[in-house]
Amino acid sequence: MTEVDKKWMRLALEIAERGAGHVSPNPMVGCVIVSEEGEKIAQGYHERYGQAHAEQNAVDAVKNPKLLENATVYVTLEPCAHQGNTPPCCEMLAELPIKRVVVAMQDPTPKVAGKGIQHLRNHNITVDVGLLTKEAKRLNEFFLHHQTFNRPFVTLKIAQTLDGYIAAPDGNSEWISGEHARAMVHQWRSRYDAVMVGRNTALLDNPRLTVRHVEGRQPRRIVIDGPLELPDDLNLFTDQYEDKTIVLTHNEEKYRNEADPMLNMLKSDYFRGQTLLVEEKDGHTDLKKALREIGGLPLTSVLVEAGQNLASALLREKLVDKVECFIAPKMLGGGTKSVLGVGINRMEEIMEFRDVQWKKVGQDLLFRGYF
Amino acid sequence: MTEVDKKWMRLALEIAERGAGHVSPNPMVGCVIVSEEGEKIAQGYHERYGQAHAEQNAVDAVKNPKLLENATVYVTLEPCAHQGNTPPCCEMLAELPIKRVVVAMQDPTPKVAGKGIQHLRNHNITVDVGLLTKEAKRLNEFFLHHQTFNRPFVTLKIAQTLDGYIAAPDGNSEWISGEHARAMVHQWRSRYDAVMVGRNTALLDNPRLTVRHVEGRQPRRIVIDGPLELPDDLNLFTDQYEDKTIVLTHNEEKYRNEADPMLNMLKSDYFRGQTLLVEEKDGHTDLKKALREIGGLPLTSVLVEAGQNLASALLREKLVDKVECFIAPKMLGGGTKSVLGVGINRMEEIMEFRDVQWKKVGQDLLFRGYF
Repeated sequence: MTEVDKKWMRLALEIAERGAGHVSPNPMVGCVIVSEEGEKIAQGYHERYGQAHAEQNAVDAVKNPKLLENATVYVTLEPCAHQGNTPPCCEMLAELPIKRVVVAMQDPTPKVAGKGIQHLRNHNITVDVGLLTKEAKRLNEFFLHHQTFNRPFVTLKIAQTLDGYIAAPDGNSEWISGEHARAMVHQWRSRYDAVMVGRNTALLDNPRLTVRHVEGRQPRRIVIDGPLELPDDLNLFTDQYEDKTIVLTHNEEKYRNEADPMLNMLKSDYFRGQTLLVEEKDGHTDLKKALREIGGLPLTSVLVEAGQNLASALLREKLVDKVECFIAPKMLGGGTKSVLGVGINRMEEIMEFRDVQWKKVGQDLLFRGYF
Repeated sequence: MTEVDKKWMRLALEIAERGAGHVSPNPMVGCVIVSEEGEKIAQGYHERYGQAHAEQNAVDAVKNPKLLENATVYVTLEPCAHQGNTPPCCEMLAELPIKRVVVAMQDPTPKVAGKGIQHLRNHNITVDVGLLTKEAKRLNEFFLHHQTFNRPFVTLKIAQTLDGYIAAPDGNSEWISGEHARAMVHQWRSRYDAVMVGRNTALLDNPRLTVRHVEGRQPRRIVIDGPLELPDDLNLFTDQYEDKTIVLTHNEEKYRNEADPMLNMLKSDYFRGQTLLVEEKDGHTDLKKALREIGGLPLTSVLVEAGQNLASALLREKLVDKVECFIAPKMLGGGTKSVLGVGINRMEEIMEFRDVQWKKVGQDLLFRGYF
C-alpha cells in the first residue's frame, strides 16, 4: 500500500470519529471512495446507532455512478457480513463495479471476522487489509475492548495537585484543575457511554455528571451503592436525566424490597433509571462482576470520575484500562490522595503505563497512559 | 536599545552561564565587546571565584586595541565599583576609549548599587541599563536571593510517581525516575553550592550526594541532624568528600561535647567537615535559622534532595523558592508521599506556583515552578 492509500485512509479515520458518542455499541467507521483517476468521489461515516453504515452513506453520496468503475473504497473496519439493523455492507459493495477495497483492520466480531473480506474477494474485488491498523484500533478502543472482554473499556479520570491530592484536608475539591481541563472532561462525558462514581462521591459531592460546558450527548450515569442507601434527593436521582442513572448494589434484600422498578414507581415519585444487583466480594460490590453487568446493557465505555476509594479499588482489581490525569501546578501537602491502597508493597510491583502522552491543557498538564 | 543590542546581550548571558558552579558566592557575569563597525572584537566571563571579572577577561582578549575606539561593551551585570579580589571594573572600563556600555541590570550589592554606572557616566561614557533584565535576574537567581535575604536560594527536588509517591510501602525508592532525570540531578548538584538532606534520608538511604554521571564540581553536602546522632560510618562522613559535609544540629550539649572540630580530630579518625549549632524550634532544628547559618558560610544555593519530612517542613516554613519535580509514568498507590503535612486545611490556602514549565526528560516529565 502506498502513501496515497495512507492519505485516504487517514481521511476515513478522521471522518469516522464524527460518530463518537452516537454509534455505541457499534464501532465508529469511516469510508472514502476514490475514482480510478485518483479523485475522491464520495465519503461517509456511521453517524448514529441503528442508521446506515459508513459504506452505505459513502455510496449514497456518489453523484456520478460511472465514476465507481474501477474505483477504490477505503474503509476503517472490515465491511459487515451480517444482517443487522441494515443489510450486509459486503454484499452491497460486491455489486458495485469497484476494483479494490482497502480495509484498516478486520472486524473481530464473530459474525464478521473475515467473512466480509472473503465475500468481496469471491466477487473478484482486490482487498488489502491492514493500513493504519494501530490508529484504527485506537479509534475503536471502546468497541474492541467490549468485544474481547464483555465489559466496558474503563478510563480513570483524576484531577490532582502536583503532590497527588484531589481534595484539601477539609474535603473541598473545587477546583484543583483549571477550566480548560474541566471543559475537556465534559467533552469526554459526551463520548463515553457512561460516567461512574462511587457512593462517597455521590453523597459528598452530589455531582450531576452531565455534559454542560460543551455541546454533546448526555451519558448514562453509574453509581456503585453497595448498601443501596443513597438518599433519593441526590441530583443523580432527581434531575432531568434521572432515567440515565444506573445503581449497582450488592444488598440483595434491599434490592428485592425496594429496587424493583415497578415497586419503585408505585412507592415513590421518582424512578431510578435502573438498579442492578451484583454479587458481593469482601464486603463490597464485586467490581469485575459489576462491569460485566454494565457491559451487558450493553455499554462499551465508562469514564470513572470517582474519589480515592473506588479509583483505588478499580486499580487494585486491574480493571482500569486508561488513566487520564490532570496535574495542576499547585500543592496541598495534605488532604485526600488520588490513589491509596492498591495492594502494592515492593518497587518491583509498580504499575507502569504504556503509550504515555503528556499534554498541556490550559495551566494544567494532562497525563494519558494505558495499562 | 535595538535588536542588535539584544543579540549581543543574549550572547553575553550565554557565556556568563559557563561560570555556573564555579563563581559562587559571586554572580555569573558575561561580557561582549563590539567595535564601532558592529563586529565582535572580544568576549569574556567570570570563570572562577577569586579570579578576573568578565569585563577584565573580555578586555584582555582584545587583539587589536585600536578597535576599542568608540566600541560598545555589553555586560550582564553592572561593573563593580569596589576593590575586591580584583580592582574595580568600572575604573578599568572608564579608562578605555569606548563610547557606550550596555548593562542588563544594576548590581543590588550595597557596595555597587549604581556606583559603577555613575562612574562610567562621569567619564562621558553612555550607559544604557535594563536589557534582558528578566533573563539576567534568572541567571543569577541564587546570587540575588542570597544578597536580598541573607540565606541561600532553596530548590526542592522531588522524584515521584504520577500519584505522588517517592517510595514503595517497603521503603525502597530505587528507582522511580529514569536515568535521564537522574543525570540531570547530577548536573544540578554541580551547579548548586550545596545539596541538603534530612536525618532520615541520610540514615535510610545512606546517599553520597556527589556528582557522578556527569562532569562537574562536587557540591558541599548538608545534613540536618537535630539530635546529632547519625552514625559515623555513613558515606557522607567517610568518603573522599567528607570535608564537604556540613552537619546542622540543635543538640547544644552534644555539640559542645563532640562536634568541636579540634576535639573531633583528636577523638576519631574522620573529620566531619563542619558542624554548626542552630536553635531549636518545636523540638526540631529551626530551619530558617539553619538556612541563615548556611547563607553566612557563604553558600548561596541549596538543592534539597530530602524525603517527606524535611521537604514538608521547608514548605511549611515557606523556605522553598523553587520546586523541580520529576513525575514518572508509574503508579504505586501507596508508600511514602512526596509531601505531607504543610499545615494547609482549606482550598483557599493552596500553594500556587508561578513561571511554571513542564518538560519531558526521557520517559519522565519535569515540573519546574517558583513560589
